[in-house]
Amino acid sequence: MLKPEALQELIQVLGQDNVLMEKEDLMTYAYDATAAMKRVLPDVVITPANTEQVAEVVKIANKYQTPIYPRGSGTNLSGGTIPVESGIVMSMLNMNQILEVDAENLTAWVQPGVIIQDLNNAAMEHGLFYPPDPGTVTTATMGGSVSESSGGLRGLKYGVTKQYVMGMKLVRGNGDVIKWGGKTVKNVSGYDLTALFTGAEGTLGILTEILVKLSPTPEAKKSILGVFDDIDKAGSAISAIIRNKVIPATLEIMDNMTIRTVENFAHAGLPIDAQAILLCEVDGYKEAVEREATLVEKILAEEGATEVKLAKDDKERDQIWFARRNALPALAQLKPTTVLEDATVPRSKIPDMIKAIRQIATKYNLTIGTFGHAGDGNLHPTILTDARDTEEMERVEKAVAEIFDVAISLGGTLSGEHGIGMAKAKFLPLEFGEEGVNLLRDIKKALDPNFILNPGKMVRRD
Amino acid sequence: MLKPEALQELIQVLGQDNVLMEKEDLMTYAYDATAAMKRVLPDVVITPANTEQVAEVVKIANKYQTPIYPRGSGTNLSGGTIPVESGIVMSMLNMNQILEVDAENLTAWVQPGVIIQDLNNAAMEHGLFYPPDPGTVTTATMGGSVSESSGGLRGLKYGVTKQYVMGMKLVRGNGDVIKWGGKTVKNVSGYDLTALFTGAEGTLGILTEILVKLSPTPEAKKSILGVFDDIDKAGSAISAIIRNKVIPATLEIMDNMTIRTVENFAHAGLPIDAQAILLCEVDGYKEAVEREATLVEKILAEEGATEVKLAKDDKERDQIWFARRNALPALAQLKPTTVLEDATVPRSKIPDMIKAIRQIATKYNLTIGTFGHAGDGNLHPTILTDARDTEEMERVEKAVAEIFDVAISLGGTLSGEHGIGMAKAKFLPLEFGEEGVNLLRDIKKALDPNFILNPGKMVRRD
Repeated sequence: MLKPEALQELIQVLGQDNVLMEKEDLMTYAYDATAAMKRVLPDVVITPANTEQVAEVVKIANKYQTPIYPRGSGTNLSGGTIPVESGIVMSMLNMNQILEVDAENLTAWVQPGVIIQDLNNAAMEHGLFYPPDPGTVTTATMGGSVSESSGGLRGLKYGVTKQYVMGMKLVRGNGDVIKWGGKTVKNVSGYDLTALFTGAEGTLGILTEILVKLSPTPEAKKSILGVFDDIDKAGSAISAIIRNKVIPATLEIMDNMTIRTVENFAHAGLPIDAQAILLCEVDGYKEAVEREATLVEKILAEEGATEVKLAKDDKERDQIWFARRNALPALAQLKPTTVLEDATVPRSKIPDMIKAIRQIATKYNLTIGTFGHAGDGNLHPTILTDARDTEEMERVEKAVAEIFDVAISLGGTLSGEHGIGMAKAKFLPLEFGEEGVNLLRDIKKALDPNFILNPGKMVRRD
Repeated sequence: MLKPEALQELIQVLGQDNVLMEKEDLMTYAYDATAAMKRVLPDVVITPANTEQVAEVVKIANKYQTPIYPRGSGTNLSGGTIPVESGIVMSMLNMNQILEVDAENLTAWVQPGVIIQDLNNAAMEHGLFYPPDPGTVTTATMGGSVSESSGGLRGLKYGVTKQYVMGMKLVRGNGDVIKWGGKTVKNVSGYDLTALFTGAEGTLGILTEILVKLSPTPEAKKSILGVFDDIDKAGSAISAIIRNKVIPATLEIMDNMTIRTVENFAHAGLPIDAQAILLCEVDGYKEAVEREATLVEKILAEEGATEVKLAKDDKERDQIWFARRNALPALAQLKPTTVLEDATVPRSKIPDMIKAIRQIATKYNLTIGTFGHAGDGNLHPTILTDARDTEEMERVEKAVAEIFDVAISLGGTLSGEHGIGMAKAKFLPLEFGEEGVNLLRDIKKALDPNFILNPGKMVRRD
């Protein structure tokens, strides 16, 4: 429990209106988008207005040894924003200004509470866009997505959030305010702390301003759909596209379980007997897009697609993406609880991974639909279950652990884009060994020795 | 001095042949490509053959509290490989195997002693290339260039080394061997230690294997030259190119001093009265390159270039780049000592920076030629001097400090691509404040508490 003196100091810094203590207010901060996590009420929810207030709060938290849980929109899928014990939830939603769009240097400075889509709208006025595109682009904040280094559909060609963060202002665990990075493409001054704090899940510092890179909006786009009766052929088509030097903006896959569920849900005219669908989008200059689309069409046919469809116009393009957009909603309506994983493998291992997931589903008698970002090896095995069914949840846990095992053994990673948070912290030794986890912990201890900043996430105290 | 027992242990691990102790051998490791640095002889130079040997040596170094200076080809320009006191120089040149080129996943695993160009040659067989291209591409090692996060001419479109490192095996300061990252584009497992160790100048760990990303070789290239009688017009042309959504692979600038020197040296037919030359190369699909080259030609003319030349064939293209390639050699032959800086500013500030450098040259009565990577704001003010002239060297030092001041005040950085090393460590507070330097030091202390790994570089003990 927070001491009354601590509360008084918080109110003094932030004003009464920015310090919430009513139980009904606190309840909405006891969970986030992650399924089946324990809910813990914070003592207090605060909404700072600027960097100075954040720094003052960090000093108060240190003085009273109480944790701070920074939070954007809470859309993360790894329990990154849930309190693990009572403490202060710091909502960044009031710090939501786009401070600058600099079209000459292709950059923007934003506060952490800015919604990603709002940045895109501001960039669009200059013919620019912000390439990282997590599924929650219309609700997630920049602070949250930078702290999780979130991915999305365009990773293959454009990379993910960490490739777009150029600098930041942040508050360290001791309350120091530090500015890092800048508008220059080249910057090798000091260790790359911009990269270290990106994806650190709020455990090393609290971001109060973020500098990101923008890109020119591509002139043209074309989408192609390929239907396969064999998962290996689909995998081989993915490799063939890359081998032919086409780097699509997006290259997605849906397995049979997902196809059937989407079709049942959305009646999109999908081939329910197909073992896999590949959805591909190429973008860039008109002429380049023409060439790449034609080439992809040819490759899909050569690799044994039973049907290939090149969208002739925007309407056909929307039809192709309608199915993909409905994958998660369709799966999610089958059962009360959706456990969405993001184990990721080298793209050449996609068929192996999909087959392994199918075997795991059979072994544990679970319903698992798999779809995801085939081009960058980032699959979303989606386990449909019911958190109230303790026996089934035990099987789910075993299945998840086995999915991680397979991903690591194929040269992959525990998390492609959802982060470690609370949900996967215990699996880290699988990927890095105890020596690797010790290294992570040494960094955490060096930067936040009192474990004030989002404790219990990423790396534990011991 | 190294204790005889320590030496015995090193010989036991590495074999007599891989432990050099003769003064004439040691002398060649007392300096690197950085101008005017104090030369310090190491006690011993060793050449490990594998990760296990590196780990054993780190343990010995810890036991005897003796520093290790990892070294590739020594081409760095910030004193990154010079011993600051006696100790062990660890040459990585015997670990020079390309372990794998994986064309399906667009990656390569290399040992640190691999020369960058050798990786490019291996990648070329698969129609791929490794985009980072420091000027020393034919001599610098992968280990050195990753540790310095080196840049080069293609930064604007392709980014620099840090954008291409996907994973690594490394030896920590305590001898632990840790593998990090992997072949997946998406990876948010743990803190981004791949990024932290890239550009860490060998001060946090010793890289023993490196995983890098490769790109498809562009199908076509075109080069355009623009001549300007006014530095502001050249700057405005740079901005106009970007504003028109052309992101050239390369966009270089040379100032009047450099133009005149190159012309005198190489008789390339350069306009010696020009205030600036812009050299631009666009690459990609044939059709895209045609459009971009024509657009750049038009923009240069509109922005007031007195002459615009689009290379019609490879021969004309080589002519355009001949001048740029000769910039440094031409400047370097004017005086015995060449102090080559790399202060970097947002690209919109290039004209301000060039003018400031000119004023500084006049103020301190120095000869400074400026050329560099205009597209990414990375200039190379090159001070021509004589290290034996103590009085002039004092003026050089003042001029360098002032160049850094201006770069920082324009929103830039101390170093775009050469690193901090010994040469710029004392200037770090300028860019990050004492709080920022404390943060760097906290990371160094957490990962290498005994300051065994390349001490005296990047961040000092206190």
